[in-house]
Amino acid sequence: MSALEPVKVGVLGLGTVGCGTANILSRNADEIARRAGRGIEISIASMRDTKKQRACDTSSITLTEDSNKVVTDPDVEIVLELIGGTDEAKDLVLKAIEHGKHVVTANKALIALHGNEIFQRAQEKGVTVAFEAAVAGGIPIIKAIREGLSANAIQWLAGIINGTGNFILTEMRDKGRDFDDVLKEAQQLGYAEADPTFDVEGIDAAHKLTILASIAFGVPLQFEKVYTEGITELTRDDVAYAAELGYRIKHLGIAKRTTKGLELRVHPTLIPHRRLLANVDGVMNAVVVKADALGPSLYYGAGAGAEPTGSAVVADLVDVVRALTSDPENRVPHLAFQPGALSDIPILSMDDVSTAYYLRIHVQDRAGVLADVTQIFADHTISIEAIIQKEPQANISIVPIVILTHEVSEQNMNQAIDEIEKLEAVTNKVMRIRLETLS
Amino acid sequence: MSALEPVKVGVLGLGTVGCGTANILSRNADEIARRAGRGIEISIASMRDTKKQRACDTSSITLTEDSNKVVTDPDVEIVLELIGGTDEAKDLVLKAIEHGKHVVTANKALIALHGNEIFQRAQEKGVTVAFEAAVAGGIPIIKAIREGLSANAIQWLAGIINGTGNFILTEMRDKGRDFDDVLKEAQQLGYAEADPTFDVEGIDAAHKLTILASIAFGVPLQFEKVYTEGITELTRDDVAYAAELGYRIKHLGIAKRTTKGLELRVHPTLIPHRRLLANVDGVMNAVVVKADALGPSLYYGAGAGAEPTGSAVVADLVDVVRALTSDPENRVPHLAFQPGALSDIPILSMDDVSTAYYLRIHVQDRAGVLADVTQIFADHTISIEAIIQKEPQANISIVPIVILTHEVSEQNMNQAIDEIEKLEAVTNKVMRIRLETLS
Repeated sequence: MSALEPVKVGVLGLGTVGCGTANILSRNADEIARRAGRGIEISIASMRDTKKQRACDTSSITLTEDSNKVVTDPDVEIVLELIGGTDEAKDLVLKAIEHGKHVVTANKALIALHGNEIFQRAQEKGVTVAFEAAVAGGIPIIKAIREGLSANAIQWLAGIINGTGNFILTEMRDKGRDFDDVLKEAQQLGYAEADPTFDVEGIDAAHKLTILASIAFGVPLQFEKVYTEGITELTRDDVAYAAELGYRIKHLGIAKRTTKGLELRVHPTLIPHRRLLANVDGVMNAVVVKADALGPSLYYGAGAGAEPTGSAVVADLVDVVRALTSDPENRVPHLAFQPGALSDIPILSMDDVSTAYYLRIHVQDRAGVLADVTQIFADHTISIEAIIQKEPQANISIVPIVILTHEVSEQNMNQAIDEIEKLEAVTNKVMRIRLETLS
Repeated sequence: MSALEPVKVGVLGLGTVGCGTANILSRNADEIARRAGRGIEISIASMRDTKKQRACDTSSITLTEDSNKVVTDPDVEIVLELIGGTDEAKDLVLKAIEHGKHVVTANKALIALHGNEIFQRAQEKGVTVAFEAAVAGGIPIIKAIREGLSANAIQWLAGIINGTGNFILTEMRDKGRDFDDVLKEAQQLGYAEADPTFDVEGIDAAHKLTILASIAFGVPLQFEKVYTEGITELTRDDVAYAAELGYRIKHLGIAKRTTKGLELRVHPTLIPHRRLLANVDGVMNAVVVKADALGPSLYYGAGAGAEPTGSAVVADLVDVVRALTSDPENRVPHLAFQPGALSDIPILSMDDVSTAYYLRIHVQDRAGVLADVTQIFADHTISIEAIIQKEPQANISIVPIVILTHEVSEQNMNQAIDEIEKLEAVTNKVMRIRLETLS
């Protein structure tokens, strides 16, 4: 793979997502090249003001204020469209396609409104327009539906596909706050725009739903036919009453196939509180897809942000590079990385693993036992997070002590358990279960 | 696309998953061809006893008891290996590769134990060996990690990747039952094998973890280095104590990158009960992947069963067919279906949509109002699921009535709301939020 020159990428717009993408490409350059079979480099980027400070290293990138230079640059094979909006973005994307460039975009409005035309031109010119980052940020939902679920007749999908709205609804529920109050905080935190219309009125979600519905049901993009209702009318009372009835209110995009046709709708929705989707909180996104063969599946992750969105942009870049570089049957290496580029990083033995622990110790119910046990932990510098000592059952003088510890090496814990089991008052083998916070 | 002959597939083993796959290919033949650009047909299948009754229509399939006929058939382009086990399966897969066939397999043990050798032969012969169905059934987790997350340095992944074990743990928690008791029921329900060792001792999960770790971290398959601990020692007391402390016990496969090397381990694990993964119940599977750019993402769905596993098998078939059929840049159509094969199925207006509803109605607190409201529902044949009438607040004679309805058309509901708002005792616009059970 080192024989090939890196693929050169031109970027339109080096803002939040552009710099997130640049930072990923530079930080993970080695892993990405091992996966793609070839390096990927940003060679040129356009922006309104080349003098403005950027959140990424631009020292190896040619900066220009003329976007046309990016889409016509003969060295550039792939153009990233990250300027947003629909007018200028559309012109530049079409121009890039005319010049034979593949295009990767994070622009949901552009695809929802002009995708039919853009894809037709791309098809005619034999280039790809990739748009994983346009829906649900870094979650690979486009790939899951277009490729992972290709066996299925899809029945419906429902998604939390706007992080700002979900943050507001989560705060309203958790803290009993009012919509306007939370919106102001979201704006201060940078989760909501100064003009929040696109987010809270459901327009952004409708753009994304348009795209999801097309790839799920095989219909043209039809943004104008999506029913859209925002969350601005919801009160904290509604949130509380819904909870009382066993439901949570989420702002969902729903696409459903019925015998009469397709439903495409974005609106606040009560869903049973036990559903995983009801437990997707804060700025996170998730999409449930109900399909005839697979049944329900769910895809969850960060729906916005510099690097989460950059993750989807780079995945699209790797997809394009794999197609350009490999034989079709080796497009994706069997083990994700090129066969010659596997790593010999060692697999650790359990002794070297550290986790927190749950321990259940059965002891004779008499004074001093707990002190003996905790002394052993102290000797091994194991700190205790919680202890429950259960009451003895009738006529039984054996009581269980349940302990949660902080993180400690398995080797250290094994030694402590050995010593505990040798205490006279300890009557059984210690039950040990590892604990992970998954954070 | 109709110009091309369907791709012919040979199947080794027409049992549960084989027939699930055959049923999907036949039921969804049109949608699959519109996605793949070409039809996909099973032309030949081998089995121990061709006279045994099958759970799928075999009338157009040549049935044979000689597996060699399948892997050497000159008309077959793709071989599905669905016989399970590792010895015969390995021989047949290698033979199929020698004969230039692409291979799709659902066999986790085969890939975990012999994948390194199989992939090398496939590479040399220029064919693909696809194995999405080998991990987490129908969840496209292999595709998500190999392609969707290709931008990321993966930090760790943790999965519920054995449905039998998760069913047992869920029942132990929900019903306070003992392990042995639930295992017997799982065997009666067909969720657990007569010999449950592979499932409850974590061997099946270790096979899957081996595969996930390789594609996440770019290391060779090393099943023999996975630490494996089963769930047979867990008691209902442990499950209850964990709950008391705010945790649930799940049988997780965990792969983690540390500065010293990789941890690969399958064992019972306490996880905080608020995590989505802690709420994955019954036979369902889910995998969380923590990646440096995207952060955490989660993939949830059915991990076993005829059609869920068949969904992944067919997705692999479509992947292979797309690579065989299309130019690299058009491998996956922009809108998932071939540009000439989009559907003109209509998008419905909201009037034609049916959902359940939450309504909040503010009324003057006097006799007869609720009767008037419910009469209007009766007139429109709208049935009521639940009503909450709140107490009036001090000095305010207006009370909110909250109503959940069963499913009804939007048009019908709009008419009812109009009439309710005309009632003299109703003081405000009716708040209406749609309700979906997502089932």
